[in-house]
Amino acid sequence: MNEYLKHDEWCIIEEGFKPENHRASESIFSLGNGNMGQRAMFEEHYSGETLQGTYVAGVYYPDKTRVGWWKNGYPEYFAKVLNAPTWINIDVKINGEMLDLAKCEVSNFVRTLNMKEGVLERSFIATLSNGNKVKVEAKRFLSIVTSEVGVIRYSVTPLNFDGKISFTPYIDADVMNEDSNYDEKFWEVLAVKSIKGEGYIAAKTKKLDFHVCMGMKYEVCKDGQKQELHPILTEEEKYVANTVEFDVEQDQELSIYKYASVLSSLNHAKADIFNNAQVVVSAASEKSYGSLLEEHVSAWADKWAHSDIVIEGDVAAQQAIRFNIFQMNQTYTGEDERLNIGPKGFTGEKYGGSTYWDTEAYCVPFYLSTSKPEVTRNLLIYRHKQLQKAIENAEKLGFTNGAALYPMVTMNGEECHNEWEITFEEIHRNGAIAFAIYNYIRHTGDEKYLAEYGLDVLIGISRFWSQRITFSEAKKKYVMLGVTGPNEYENNINNNWYTSTIANWCMKYTREALQIVKASNPDRLKEIMSNLNFDFEVETAKWKDINENMFYPIDEETGVFLQQEGYMDKEQILAADLDPAIRPINQHWSWDRILRSCFIKQADVLQGVYLFEDQFDEETIKKNYDFYEPRTVHESSLSPCIHSILASKIGDIDGAYQLYLRTSRLDLDDYNKEVHEGLHITSMAGTWMSIVEGFGGLRVVNGKLVLNPLIPKEWKSYSFKIRFRGNLLNVRVSEEGVGVINEEGEDISLFIQDDEYKIEKESSLVIEHA
Amino acid sequence: MNEYLKHDEWCIIEEGFKPENHRASESIFSLGNGNMGQRAMFEEHYSGETLQGTYVAGVYYPDKTRVGWWKNGYPEYFAKVLNAPTWINIDVKINGEMLDLAKCEVSNFVRTLNMKEGVLERSFIATLSNGNKVKVEAKRFLSIVTSEVGVIRYSVTPLNFDGKISFTPYIDADVMNEDSNYDEKFWEVLAVKSIKGEGYIAAKTKKLDFHVCMGMKYEVCKDGQKQELHPILTEEEKYVANTVEFDVEQDQELSIYKYASVLSSLNHAKADIFNNAQVVVSAASEKSYGSLLEEHVSAWADKWAHSDIVIEGDVAAQQAIRFNIFQMNQTYTGEDERLNIGPKGFTGEKYGGSTYWDTEAYCVPFYLSTSKPEVTRNLLIYRHKQLQKAIENAEKLGFTNGAALYPMVTMNGEECHNEWEITFEEIHRNGAIAFAIYNYIRHTGDEKYLAEYGLDVLIGISRFWSQRITFSEAKKKYVMLGVTGPNEYENNINNNWYTSTIANWCMKYTREALQIVKASNPDRLKEIMSNLNFDFEVETAKWKDINENMFYPIDEETGVFLQQEGYMDKEQILAADLDPAIRPINQHWSWDRILRSCFIKQADVLQGVYLFEDQFDEETIKKNYDFYEPRTVHESSLSPCIHSILASKIGDIDGAYQLYLRTSRLDLDDYNKEVHEGLHITSMAGTWMSIVEGFGGLRVVNGKLVLNPLIPKEWKSYSFKIRFRGNLLNVRVSEEGVGVINEEGEDISLFIQDDEYKIEKESSLVIEHA
Repeated sequence: MNEYLKHDEWCIIEEGFKPENHRASESIFSLGNGNMGQRAMFEEHYSGETLQGTYVAGVYYPDKTRVGWWKNGYPEYFAKVLNAPTWINIDVKINGEMLDLAKCEVSNFVRTLNMKEGVLERSFIATLSNGNKVKVEAKRFLSIVTSEVGVIRYSVTPLNFDGKISFTPYIDADVMNEDSNYDEKFWEVLAVKSIKGEGYIAAKTKKLDFHVCMGMKYEVCKDGQKQELHPILTEEEKYVANTVEFDVEQDQELSIYKYASVLSSLNHAKADIFNNAQVVVSAASEKSYGSLLEEHVSAWADKWAHSDIVIEGDVAAQQAIRFNIFQMNQTYTGEDERLNIGPKGFTGEKYGGSTYWDTEAYCVPFYLSTSKPEVTRNLLIYRHKQLQKAIENAEKLGFTNGAALYPMVTMNGEECHNEWEITFEEIHRNGAIAFAIYNYIRHTGDEKYLAEYGLDVLIGISRFWSQRITFSEAKKKYVMLGVTGPNEYENNINNNWYTSTIANWCMKYTREALQIVKASNPDRLKEIMSNLNFDFEVETAKWKDINENMFYPIDEETGVFLQQEGYMDKEQILAADLDPAIRPINQHWSWDRILRSCFIKQADVLQGVYLFEDQFDEETIKKNYDFYEPRTVHESSLSPCIHSILASKIGDIDGAYQLYLRTSRLDLDDYNKEVHEGLHITSMAGTWMSIVEGFGGLRVVNGKLVLNPLIPKEWKSYSFKIRFRGNLLNVRVSEEGVGVINEEGEDISLFIQDDEYKIEKESSLVIEHA
Repeated sequence: MNEYLKHDEWCIIEEGFKPENHRASESIFSLGNGNMGQRAMFEEHYSGETLQGTYVAGVYYPDKTRVGWWKNGYPEYFAKVLNAPTWINIDVKINGEMLDLAKCEVSNFVRTLNMKEGVLERSFIATLSNGNKVKVEAKRFLSIVTSEVGVIRYSVTPLNFDGKISFTPYIDADVMNEDSNYDEKFWEVLAVKSIKGEGYIAAKTKKLDFHVCMGMKYEVCKDGQKQELHPILTEEEKYVANTVEFDVEQDQELSIYKYASVLSSLNHAKADIFNNAQVVVSAASEKSYGSLLEEHVSAWADKWAHSDIVIEGDVAAQQAIRFNIFQMNQTYTGEDERLNIGPKGFTGEKYGGSTYWDTEAYCVPFYLSTSKPEVTRNLLIYRHKQLQKAIENAEKLGFTNGAALYPMVTMNGEECHNEWEITFEEIHRNGAIAFAIYNYIRHTGDEKYLAEYGLDVLIGISRFWSQRITFSEAKKKYVMLGVTGPNEYENNINNNWYTSTIANWCMKYTREALQIVKASNPDRLKEIMSNLNFDFEVETAKWKDINENMFYPIDEETGVFLQQEGYMDKEQILAADLDPAIRPINQHWSWDRILRSCFIKQADVLQGVYLFEDQFDEETIKKNYDFYEPRTVHESSLSPCIHSILASKIGDIDGAYQLYLRTSRLDLDDYNKEVHEGLHITSMAGTWMSIVEGFGGLRVVNGKLVLNPLIPKEWKSYSFKIRFRGNLLNVRVSEEGVGVINEEGEDISLFIQDDEYKIEKESSLVIEHA
């Protein structure tokens, strides 16, 4: 824990400058707009500890794999989120001395992330070693309207002197990833250009040939009066700059407005990118700071109108949930089906590759409810387009006939993770991808998606399961050997209940999906069958046989689903009985000790109970929850949310709230002392789920919304927005009752607990508790 | 397979120079004398493909660990067998042109490893690009009498010219390991000295501060006449040389005798090492080439007199077994308890660290029968001295109270392997270390070893097992979860029959050992108990309880011991049914596919059946052999020998012979195309075991030797030597019968099959078959 931020409903606020918190703040105060993102590094030179991070969506680097001992099947590379040429920088000199917060006296430091407006602000007073005292105010944003544009306003006011102040706005391509397997630099500079008031650098990645071009334009005002520029121009191999110097009197404000364009070859022809960067930055500077900010703030207002959660009576919780929603919206906007959601978004390098099963298991529910269907649809199409790679991935492991295994970590569909117990064995991820298709259709009603994009993915996944599952002559049942479940504290186990359950569900759902497409679009079915060389009778018969004869481990005494065969042979100890000094166990115990223990990293059986809740009665859910939660150490950021939802489900609102607390301020309060590496973006969606699916009890059943709301006693009320098939609903839960406003769309009928209600368009429903 | 060597009873012979075989030959023709060793690099400059390898026993480098994903408990370093400064080199110039077999025409090339004498010879005719044709003869050996001395005789004879020939004998410390985790050089040079006729380099390792000093002296003869030297002296930062040039007429032989001393700080004070290297090399050169060679050859004759195996009727087999015995004797001489036997000995870098369980499981039986007891005793004391490190190693994994886990790979007792499934889980190694104590006492009768060194090791090991084994409430039995057996194609399995069996045996044997020491040396027992804080009653009671209530997986239908719980859930396929194109599977299948398959890398259940043969009736042995051998792919060099012994045991001499073939010429015929990386030294002991314990059926039962000899139909006879408690026996087995000569020692009685025979001293016994 490291609680140094002020509680506020709409802002994240850091008061006072502590260098030891700076890397953490760089993560927390990150900005992003779906197309690019950035850690909250300072604009001015900073010689202290920092993690430079400037990221361009979809631009990555296939860093050659490094392992201790090579195992057959390991991928050639681990994809790295790429630290790109930096454009935010403005060196500031005060009477010739470089402004550097690591080397001067700092007071009145305030850093603010205004989440309502999507703006990062900073102000401080610095006393340099030459005695000059200045006030600095900096403000920047990455436009969510023009997503290739970033803007900075940076002003310096002398407080105790008249003198010279110089600004050196620059772009620097001499950057590297902190995490580089072989300490290489990944960029090659193609062109640099520095002219009066402007600068440009085009660069390409040494592998894969991604091109980017960063452009800058700037203007300087003294007390609001635009100044003429007489810059010294610098053009180096990987660096362009302008240096402009001004005489400033005490209390006069000297401000620089720096406009930047950030273009990549994902969106521009390589031949044009240099010119286009000039066009984009020129248009931005012509539009000017004020208009750009205004349209940006207005676009954020619209996002909040569709995704905000309001909590009354708990400022810390309010701030936390907004922070999570804000970061989700900064990371992924759903406009580009080539992009996905990295576990750290645009806030750090860790975990490299962009896409994990986090997307389908955690992010999809968030976007389904808070965005237009197209956003989630694009996430699904991302996987559809990578089907061929998933088939190749399965082939590398010995599977045939179009069996598809989606990778654990990927940028372009190729696997790039290199631990055998994860890469080759944590195959339940395949199930999450199928489930997301089901979930999307369930939420949106867009059943046509199956024929368009869904069915071939489902067939590839089911083919994989039917080959991966084998028949045990000893058991006379189908078994799945050698897997790692969501609980990564077990490796190479047999008959993991969760993996077997979701695998079997996939085959069943694919059989249903085939019937749906057969009925609705027989020509398309024929086409798919022909493309995939699919033998309807034989393959579905095999799936049916597995569906009916799968082995599931179960504890005969209690009826609890067993995480894996043999789980009950372990010494059964509860997490609460562990000495707090050895928590988290993953930092204190050797790996084998963790593996041998009964302790669970994150929901495993319970992940299945959560996903397939409708298959189990409440007693079964409670029995499994009561068995597994006390054995769970929640050492994944993805763990508490699922448990919180299940606790709500079984009516344990206090337990649900305690678990919610562990997820909601994970990064803001730096529970695991790791926020300096970046934020836990994908788990933020889980926090949202804890409120909406957990406390709110939101479900979709037979095409209708169902709410089963509870409220933690610590809150006065909470409200959330739900997009559901053309409607936008605002649900408010308080101690007194439940209110639902039908904000957009036609009349809708929904269930609250067991009763169905109709809400006419633009009207609302209030149900008071008895 | 790569069969390019000539079959010969005493020599390994390569005829004709093929650069593509050179790295393989460098391994095969390696020399060693227990104190140092060397790959068979050329003396003269060679610009072709080569793996430089000069090794000094006990000098290693703790290379910083490299992994893909760090797991808690991984060791800080992986110890590397260290490529030391090279001293064999002599640059040769013919009329100014460098002799380099990569750049001239080579004919009449013959390379010979004379195993009888321990000498490496080479001769060839080279035609240089300047047209000069020379005959070259080179001969070198590492003295097994003065083990810090190496000697080279290198002669050049002009065949078609009169002209100038120069020799540049040198020492070069600018060497590095091919396998360096971070491409670092590991040596720092301390001193260089080049004077007329001599040169020296002292260097130290950058970590651990091992010092070595290499010295050279040389003389030159023309047609046998010693020449006066007028050298050009070179002293560089890491290099010393003399260059001497002579006018030579056609057919005159110009020879250089190069004497080297190789000293390390294991045997010399650091302050003295430079001077001592001068003393040692001066003494060698004074003794002169002829005498050094003579005493060396005579010492080898003595080694052969005690360890030779003679096979009549099969030259390839004869050559192979002598090669294996020769390499074993080159690698370890048993004089220094700080040394051990690396899997590649002094022949390559692969596998780094020196000591694996190979030593106890494979090498100990060889040395017990072919060397004085002190040799094996020193191998045991090596582990005794590392007990404290083994305790620390176990502590890192969470064990307490003096539990000892010996490392998988080590140089000094610290673990340096970094795969969790091996490092933390392949714990059966602990059992082999205990078994070696038992085996040593059984063979030598030296029961006092228990009180002296053995008991504390046994207690540490048994304490480990009793903590590692846990009680399953579900089974009401003791279980051992999360292990890797000798079959490394299974990881993290539960209740591996072999590991559970040897663990349980350890605790039983420790209880017996405690009784023995209690009876024979109660004071020493008290001392040990006090040193180890050992609670006799409580701890042995716990071991007894485990002994009586251990769970062993067994196939109920067939009674076969199950490799692990759940093994019968796998698809049961036989190795013979695999497509030969995908063999070896470890080069063709992804790791998970191997793990999921039923295929076995090396003896696992059968390793236990082999070790504890006396616990099982012949039917049980046969049943397990018949079940497991067909599922075994023998993809470890340690596999075929154990199976061959068991095949002999159940009377399947043809099967035993086929398996013997797979082990005996593994390196000579390069079965796995990997001999260029070094020889499989430790598995060579297994080949010896295949003959002596397999065909010969040698056992020690109740303190007496037992023979159950068979002979492959391909052989006329074979004979081997056995040291057993003061006797040296020569056992000869032929189609006609068995002969045993009592070559050394008093009268002895032994069993042949079920009959006991007495052989008086210096007499012999002949038993003809009926």
